[in-house]
Amino acid sequence: MQKPVLHTLLSPRLLDLYDVDNSIVVIIDVFRATSTIATALYNGAEKVVPVAGVEDCIATGKKLNAITAGERDGKIIPGLQHGNSPAEYPREFIEGKTLVLTTTNGTKLLHMALDKNASEVITGSFPNLSAVCEHLIASKKNVILGCSAWKDRFNLEDTLFAGAVISRVKEHFAIHCDSSLMAEDMYNLHRHDMYGFIRKLTHWHRLSAFGLEKDLEYCVTPDVANVLSLYKDGALVVA
Amino acid sequence: MQKPVLHTLLSPRLLDLYDVDNSIVVIIDVFRATSTIATALYNGAEKVVPVAGVEDCIATGKKLNAITAGERDGKIIPGLQHGNSPAEYPREFIEGKTLVLTTTNGTKLLHMALDKNASEVITGSFPNLSAVCEHLIASKKNVILGCSAWKDRFNLEDTLFAGAVISRVKEHFAIHCDSSLMAEDMYNLHRHDMYGFIRKLTHWHRLSAFGLEKDLEYCVTPDVANVLSLYKDGALVVA
Repeated sequence: MQKPVLHTLLSPRLLDLYDVDNSIVVIIDVFRATSTIATALYNGAEKVVPVAGVEDCIATGKKLNAITAGERDGKIIPGLQHGNSPAEYPREFIEGKTLVLTTTNGTKLLHMALDKNASEVITGSFPNLSAVCEHLIASKKNVILGCSAWKDRFNLEDTLFAGAVISRVKEHFAIHCDSSLMAEDMYNLHRHDMYGFIRKLTHWHRLSAFGLEKDLEYCVTPDVANVLSLYKDGALVVA
Repeated sequence: MQKPVLHTLLSPRLLDLYDVDNSIVVIIDVFRATSTIATALYNGAEKVVPVAGVEDCIATGKKLNAITAGERDGKIIPGLQHGNSPAEYPREFIEGKTLVLTTTNGTKLLHMALDKNASEVITGSFPNLSAVCEHLIASKKNVILGCSAWKDRFNLEDTLFAGAVISRVKEHFAIHCDSSLMAEDMYNLHRHDMYGFIRKLTHWHRLSAFGLEKDLEYCVTPDVANVLSLYKDGALVVA
């Protein structure tokens, strides 16, 4: 039997180069949207509704009687109740609730994948690494590992997560793209010093100015919120 | 004094994210356009005229009484006289002549950079690595290392060349982008086994089917055609 194909997308701007409507798209936004989504769901959130804009976030929050949250350029948006930090969503706060979330990059790519009729959309980051890998292996479908990047520019934290997935699932897929080869190389090069290496990244310098070092270390820690986050009926839920 | 800024562009599709009109843009198309351009100029070609399309190539060739050459998808184009292999342009053939060249990726990015008013456009590949690095250091201007990629998809051979440049010039520039950090890492990881590593790349599999292994090894060999290729008055010339 022919193996399904896996590609790594390095920027939302390149999405149309890939066969989206025949693939599971894994939305990756390690710092911090998809780390926060995994954490909220792991801690019992009923669902996370990803929305593209701030007005939509406020309106949807009212309609669903939900918590509104989001960031632009790493900062909480005026008018929303919460930010994009996984630390804001412990079980005692989020359990049984709905979170409406808008972020700079991750929610944008998610809506692009939906618009292009992805056969399935899930979200991934280090906190739910194993759940993502197990699902991809079990599904036996084509996969696009979709790095959300930063305003369309390549970033390394999303690429490292793609590499982590590839290192675990590669026997089950046909992988012939240079971006996947690079992602796995970069992950293998830095996997044993992730906390050190992330301090060299552009996004670290952007966010650490807001005192988020612990947040960012959490976001590259495997399996601390290990649930599968699947998009279904307008929201991300535990599959 | 503030250092000039260096960025690495991973796909032509992302060019507008960078400050092109304030930068030297290095067009990189290792397999094989910019390797061929360096070789033709090193072997005494008067100039290389990069054109976007086949019709333009034929028309310009007639007007200039020049040699027409090009490829699409790695193959010679019907109607043109020569292909995109550096081996086709030894001194006894090309000296004193004008070459009009169109290729899948490299000439496309070059014209995009010109359209966006790059302050200077040069071409680079391993055969003229040192000439490129010396020029960038001497110029003290902002730099965009422009990977031509493959039909807008990331490729590793162009990225490795960007990494080779960065490893040599980095003290002279402010470099804060993840694509540059990645490019240098990838180059350092594979610099001592380039001939082996390129056999894993997507483009190797595409081109080696045409029996071009020696060609591709030549294209990653440093300084075998070490001239600076500068775009001036409609053509690439030795600066």
